[in-house]
Amino acid sequence: MIVINNNALLKEYCEKYDINSHFSNWEALTKKLVHYEKGEIIAFYGDQANKLFFLVKGTIKFCCFTDDYEEYFFFDATNEGLFGEVEYVMNIPLITQSEVIEDCHCIVIPVKENRKLLDNDLKFQVFLTTILAKKYNDMRNLCMNAESYPLEIRLAKYLIADKNSSKISDLTQIAKTIKCSYRQLLRTIKQFVENGWIEHLPQKGKYKIKDRDALEEVAKR
Amino acid sequence: MIVINNNALLKEYCEKYDINSHFSNWEALTKKLVHYEKGEIIAFYGDQANKLFFLVKGTIKFCCFTDDYEEYFFFDATNEGLFGEVEYVMNIPLITQSEVIEDCHCIVIPVKENRKLLDNDLKFQVFLTTILAKKYNDMRNLCMNAESYPLEIRLAKYLIADKNSSKISDLTQIAKTIKCSYRQLLRTIKQFVENGWIEHLPQKGKYKIKDRDALEEVAKR
Repeated sequence: MIVINNNALLKEYCEKYDINSHFSNWEALTKKLVHYEKGEIIAFYGDQANKLFFLVKGTIKFCCFTDDYEEYFFFDATNEGLFGEVEYVMNIPLITQSEVIEDCHCIVIPVKENRKLLDNDLKFQVFLTTILAKKYNDMRNLCMNAESYPLEIRLAKYLIADKNSSKISDLTQIAKTIKCSYRQLLRTIKQFVENGWIEHLPQKGKYKIKDRDALEEVAKR
Repeated sequence: MIVINNNALLKEYCEKYDINSHFSNWEALTKKLVHYEKGEIIAFYGDQANKLFFLVKGTIKFCCFTDDYEEYFFFDATNEGLFGEVEYVMNIPLITQSEVIEDCHCIVIPVKENRKLLDNDLKFQVFLTTILAKKYNDMRNLCMNAESYPLEIRLAKYLIADKNSSKISDLTQIAKTIKCSYRQLLRTIKQFVENGWIEHLPQKGKYKIKDRDALEEVAKR
């Protein structure tokens, strides 16, 4: 992690994503712009939580762990860019592990220094309820529909979930997440390649999305 | 639904559950105490949402529906008694269907008449973030762990989820919810009966919890 001392850039990001509109007094908050490098773990699952952050550039992979310590991948694309809010509200250790997939810029808001301001900011609390209600509802739908969809549709939904990346790797993880065996996954991936929706890269076990529109169509079925 | 015109009773419930502590100006809100009869559908899935309510007596079963209209049962026991908040925040039609299992008393807060007060109430918004973050986190855990537990544990968790009821019925529904076949469920139920944890009632397909402590132990495994 490197702190970027560039107020102009921070301001530019805020304007681009309209971040200050979620706070009554954005200027009064202590915050910093930071850079995370590809491969860096931003925070470990179970660590003490101490920041809210807005992802303004790059890609982060969020993982959680089941009670028996199996890793469970999900990319949270619906969060309007704010992360760490569940931990802030509940005052609990980190419920996800965050790893940098592509170099990132984040606006980090340390919770401790800002808690009083945040807790008393109606605008921010209303913003939080919106984010949390949506996250809850999305998770509920995911949970309910997880197995009522055929594997083909589950895989398509999974592949298009991350709008910022076309790369497909770590098949073991994908199989776990969409609840199928490795063998079943390979069969479906082979089918997707034959359909021209994804292509096999030279590296073993790596693929790339070729036809996102086709996958979006499958996911809608 | 019958409106109970009894301000003393309404006040009694508020004090018992400390409901007014979640609002800056509870007195200013329009609300009413209502009675719902066993078997009554409080609201249909997909209907327009127009109320927040606190369940202060009785039992309500909440159902949702998967995208292919399969009913999916869950009893939301973690909601601190407030319901309708996801719909209020997101301004969407009802995401659950609510059916009265035991005669209920609810304090109903119509959203339309109160929206301005609610939207501008910091205390209430902070209360909402707490509820929503907890609901999200519980749902996430449920979703992640759904299948990593053996059936025995899933059934035990399911049976003890509703602290207010010891009755077990609608096995088809239970099988769907805990993701197993009807045959697998019957086998596990038979085992539970033999262990003395539940007992078969005279009616076909009806059971009753006999040893809640034992089930709690199994659920913790």
